[in-house]
Amino acid sequence: MKEKFEEAARFLRSHDNYEILTHDYPDGDTLGSGYALCMALQQMGKNARVITTSVPKDFLFLQAGVAFQRFEAQTVVSVDVADEKLLGCNREKYEGKIDLCIDHHMTNKINAPLKLVDGHAAANCEILYKLFRYMDIKLTREIANNLYAGVSTDTGCFRYTNTTAETLRIGADIIEIGCDSAYINKIMFETKSRKRIALEREIYDTIEYCFNNRCAIIAVTLDTQKRVGATDGELEGLASIPRQIEGVEIGITMREKAEGEFKVSIRTNGGVNAAQICAKLGGGGHTAAAGCTVKGSLSEAKQVLKEAVAEYV
Amino acid sequence: MKEKFEEAARFLRSHDNYEILTHDYPDGDTLGSGYALCMALQQMGKNARVITTSVPKDFLFLQAGVAFQRFEAQTVVSVDVADEKLLGCNREKYEGKIDLCIDHHMTNKINAPLKLVDGHAAANCEILYKLFRYMDIKLTREIANNLYAGVSTDTGCFRYTNTTAETLRIGADIIEIGCDSAYINKIMFETKSRKRIALEREIYDTIEYCFNNRCAIIAVTLDTQKRVGATDGELEGLASIPRQIEGVEIGITMREKAEGEFKVSIRTNGGVNAAQICAKLGGGGHTAAAGCTVKGSLSEAKQVLKEAVAEYV
Repeated sequence: MKEKFEEAARFLRSHDNYEILTHDYPDGDTLGSGYALCMALQQMGKNARVITTSVPKDFLFLQAGVAFQRFEAQTVVSVDVADEKLLGCNREKYEGKIDLCIDHHMTNKINAPLKLVDGHAAANCEILYKLFRYMDIKLTREIANNLYAGVSTDTGCFRYTNTTAETLRIGADIIEIGCDSAYINKIMFETKSRKRIALEREIYDTIEYCFNNRCAIIAVTLDTQKRVGATDGELEGLASIPRQIEGVEIGITMREKAEGEFKVSIRTNGGVNAAQICAKLGGGGHTAAAGCTVKGSLSEAKQVLKEAVAEYV
Repeated sequence: MKEKFEEAARFLRSHDNYEILTHDYPDGDTLGSGYALCMALQQMGKNARVITTSVPKDFLFLQAGVAFQRFEAQTVVSVDVADEKLLGCNREKYEGKIDLCIDHHMTNKINAPLKLVDGHAAANCEILYKLFRYMDIKLTREIANNLYAGVSTDTGCFRYTNTTAETLRIGADIIEIGCDSAYINKIMFETKSRKRIALEREIYDTIEYCFNNRCAIIAVTLDTQKRVGATDGELEGLASIPRQIEGVEIGITMREKAEGEFKVSIRTNGGVNAAQICAKLGGGGHTAAAGCTVKGSLSEAKQVLKEAVAEYV
């Protein structure tokens, strides 16, 4: 990796007028990577700005410390973007124009002249932390806040299985710099909106246990979403609810996207292969987390899912 | 602290036949401290056993690696016990007999000839980790599992404000030894019993917002506990529910302990002093987390609480 860092460092030093791209539906890791890199470049005397599709209100504080600069863009860097498809409304403008791609997805598909990709990093901000150390960037409190937001987003605050000893040591270094970890943890992990509480309450009523309680299904219909007034923010992370129920090996989350069309997330514990189940229904994913789309009424879609699951329990 | 470690090390080397006491309603930190110390002593060729009041089923795995030894007890060590009152059913037998007290509570009140107390440690297992390193104890996978369980219990897996850079570095070292952090995180933080889910659903129905939504109150009556079949395990950690609602500064959790008697937990965000509110009702605690007992029917008790809160919002 040292050579890769040297290449990236040389690139960043020898170019200017940067646009930094995040992925669509931006989370703490892509935004944290973007703003941290932007501030690092500005510290180096470069012009830089972040190009994103939106900034959720909880993440607005990450922008603190970024200077607004007017300049004509010359160099494009993507951060935490595995595929140009994920650029959302910025895709058309930037497709094929990424000069440097910094990412932590094993499956990165971006075709850029220079790539700094480490699929073993728990968060993209881990890579940036190492790059900044390599380049002797001064890690200000603002940069540290962005790196912390990225690392904690992608590890569930050091809770997910991707957390390594190195992740924790990077977290320690960032906290020592003086980042606002308490504030960030509070807004990211200890706050639920009233709508989210209302949504969870409704969802609890829909839990259906089947196959001797080894499978649990929850459903969020359009009707429920409308009644609660749930936005995308409230609908995030629901897929962890059925899997975390004691004894459940297959947790299924059905979210009605359009009348009679359900986006399905399957999360598994232990041996069951979620990707295999979803592949049968035209979807795909990873062993423990996969997805697909099923059409029909709620009860029809449920029946299709149960049949698909049947041979795996 | 170095002298303190040297004193404790000398004590542990020069004595034998240990009984290690945990606090009542034992959690991951007191049990993790107990079993880790027990294994360390056995590694030193000593006899040792843990004396506790119960072991929740989720923590039974912590005992793996402890040898069962028959011996007549000579030396008593307490771990994570702030006060002899907290020994539960073991209090009568061991009161006044603790030879060495290892604890991380600032407010430790135990009167023992030797004390190793560090109120700045996020978890008691942090102190034990440092003691073991100082004493050159080999940190086996089993000892590491206990230390990890302790540290992650008391920091909410590195999420609470007591988490320091040192806590994260200790976590990194323990993970590097090869502890089962993924398994421990899963059972401690990513698993809910079906009863717990049912209880949360019932609780969501009781949320009452008052004082312009700056205060939220939840209530668990005896009737609800009975209907759901909730045990102490299911009732743990409910107090975080009202405080985590967006905009809520005072989160109140009422749990009916006996007919017409409510154990009340108050958790606050920002400036409100929970201890002051509870003190007015005969209770006490810390600035952000305090408790008291209020008598009366649910609506009477609620009224008393609202009046106590009124002057603080």
